[in-house]
Amino acid sequence: MPTLPTKSSWTRIAVLFLQGGASLQFSMIPMNLITDPASQTADYIMTGSWAEKAYAEAKKLFADVRMAASSKGVNYSRIPAQEELTLNPGATYVHMTSNNTIFGTEYPYRPETGSVPLVCDASSNILSRPVDVSKYGIIYAGAQKNLGPSGVTVVIIRKDLLGRKANLPSMLDFQALAKEGSMLNTPPTYAIYILGLVLEWVKEQGGVTEMERRNVSKANKLYAAIDESSFYLCPTEPRSRSRMNVPFTLAKPELTDAFLAGAKSAGLVTLKGHRSVGGMRASIYNAMPEEGVEALIAFMKTFERSNG
Amino acid sequence: MPTLPTKSSWTRIAVLFLQGGASLQFSMIPMNLITDPASQTADYIMTGSWAEKAYAEAKKLFADVRMAASSKGVNYSRIPAQEELTLNPGATYVHMTSNNTIFGTEYPYRPETGSVPLVCDASSNILSRPVDVSKYGIIYAGAQKNLGPSGVTVVIIRKDLLGRKANLPSMLDFQALAKEGSMLNTPPTYAIYILGLVLEWVKEQGGVTEMERRNVSKANKLYAAIDESSFYLCPTEPRSRSRMNVPFTLAKPELTDAFLAGAKSAGLVTLKGHRSVGGMRASIYNAMPEEGVEALIAFMKTFERSNG
Repeated sequence: MPTLPTKSSWTRIAVLFLQGGASLQFSMIPMNLITDPASQTADYIMTGSWAEKAYAEAKKLFADVRMAASSKGVNYSRIPAQEELTLNPGATYVHMTSNNTIFGTEYPYRPETGSVPLVCDASSNILSRPVDVSKYGIIYAGAQKNLGPSGVTVVIIRKDLLGRKANLPSMLDFQALAKEGSMLNTPPTYAIYILGLVLEWVKEQGGVTEMERRNVSKANKLYAAIDESSFYLCPTEPRSRSRMNVPFTLAKPELTDAFLAGAKSAGLVTLKGHRSVGGMRASIYNAMPEEGVEALIAFMKTFERSNG
Repeated sequence: MPTLPTKSSWTRIAVLFLQGGASLQFSMIPMNLITDPASQTADYIMTGSWAEKAYAEAKKLFADVRMAASSKGVNYSRIPAQEELTLNPGATYVHMTSNNTIFGTEYPYRPETGSVPLVCDASSNILSRPVDVSKYGIIYAGAQKNLGPSGVTVVIIRKDLLGRKANLPSMLDFQALAKEGSMLNTPPTYAIYILGLVLEWVKEQGGVTEMERRNVSKANKLYAAIDESSFYLCPTEPRSRSRMNVPFTLAKPELTDAFLAGAKSAGLVTLKGHRSVGGMRASIYNAMPEEGVEALIAFMKTFERSNG
C-alpha cells in the first residue's frame, strides 16, 4: 500500500502531491516565489506551447517576465543550447519545459543557472531517466504521462523556496500544503494511490535507470527507421530529439491520411501529429513496450514498400 | 458513457467540473466576484468549521468580509434562522454552508437574500434532496460525499457571474474554465467518469426526489432512536438537524469507548465523533442503505440494554 511521504521524511526537499494538473503550477510558482511583482524578474526558456502557456500565466502576475531564449522561429524544432540562453543573474527563477510533447523535443542537457533556482515542468518526461533532483529549485509534473492518472500533480521543491510569500490562499500556498503533508484538504486519493502503484512498478522493473535504457532503445530504433529512409522525415534537430514523443512526416504529405488509416487497421492508434507540426507523432512513454515501437516500425516499412 | 455538459447545453447556468476539492473554491469565489477588494463586501453565515475556513480564505483577499450570523456560541449546534441574519443589501454575495459534517446541522430553509447572489457550499448534501438551482448564484460541491471520488469539484454558476474579473490565472477563472467546457487542461478524467456513473445511478433509483425520501426515512429512524431513549443524547437543535451526519453522545460519556469498540465488532465503523463534539457521529450519505441505519439502531438498543 503506497503512502504519502510525511512532512519529515526529506530534509532539504519537500515532495507535494497536489490536486489537479500542472497548468495550475504555471500560476502557483510565480504566486509563491514573486513577493514583489514590481521589481522581480524571471527567465523563461521558450521551447513550445507549454512554455508559452507558463509564460502567459506568469505575465498576468508580474510585469518583467523575460524570454531567456526561444526556438519559435524554427517552429520549436530544437532546444536552445546553454550558450544561447540570455540569463539574468538577478532573476528570481529560470523556467524550463524539459520535454515538449507537440514538437518532439527534449533537453539534452540541464541548463546551468548559477545561484538562480531552476524550475522545471517535467510533466511529459519525469521518471523516464535519472534526474539529479538536487540541481533544481522546483520540478513539477502532472501525473498523466509517466506517473499515473490525471488529477494529481507532483511538486518537488527545495524547502528554502517554501514560505516566501505570506497570506496566500491556503490551497495555492506550497508552504501550507507542505506543512500538512499534501493533506490540507481531502487529496485526490485514487490518483495518488495509482501513482504509488506506478512508482512501485518502476522500482520493480529496475528503477529510472532501467526506464532510461528502455526509452533510449525504443527511441533509437524509431529515429533510425525514420532517418534511414527518405520516405520519412523527422522535423526535429537530432541533438534535441525527445525520447517520449517522436514526430515524423512523409516526403509525400498527401499520403498522411492513408498512413494513419493503414496504421489504425494495424492496431496503431493516436498517431496523428499536432496540427502545428502535421504528419504523425508517436508518443512512447514509459508504458509503451518495445514491441509497440517495433510494430510501428514494421508497419512503416510495409507502408513505404507499398507507397514508396 | 457519461459526458461533460457542453458549453451550450445550459442557457442561464454553467456547470463546471473542476480539478481538486471544494477548499480551492473558498478562494476562487472571492477571486472571481470581488473586483474591487477595497470597497466590496460579502456576508458569511457561520455554521461550522467549513464556513470558518471559507471565511478565513476570503479574509485573505478582501478586508470587509462580514459575519451575517454565527452559532459558534452554542458550538454550532443550530442553524441561524432567517430573522437572525444581518444581511447587507450592498454585499457582493452571501456565503452559506448547506450541511455541516462535524456538527450535524443542515439548513431547514433557503436564506432569502433579495438581489444579492447566494453562494452555497453544498459539498456534503448535494444530491440528497431536490434544490431549486435557479435560486442560487453559485452552488459548489467537492465530489467525495454524494457525487463520486475525491479530486473533482462541481460548480454550478449563474452565467452573469462569469467574467467579472479580468486577467485571473486561467485555471482559477470561472469564465475561462466555462468557455472550454471544463477542459482548459486535462481534467481529472477518472473522477469525472465515476461521477457520471453516480449521476446515472441516482437517476435510475428515481432521482433526487427518491434520494430525499430515503434520506428522510433513514434520518428520522435514527433521530427517533436517539430521542426516545435517555441513554442517548443528540446535541443539535431539532429544526437544524442534518439528514447526512447524525451526531449523538451518551448520557454516560465514560461508555463512549466501549460503544465504539462494540459497534466495530458488529461491523459498524467510522462512528467516532469529531473531537469538537465528542461522542459518535453516523454519516448516512446517499450511499448508506437503510439497512445500515437499521443495523446501527439495533446495536444501539442492544448496547443500552447491557449498559443502561
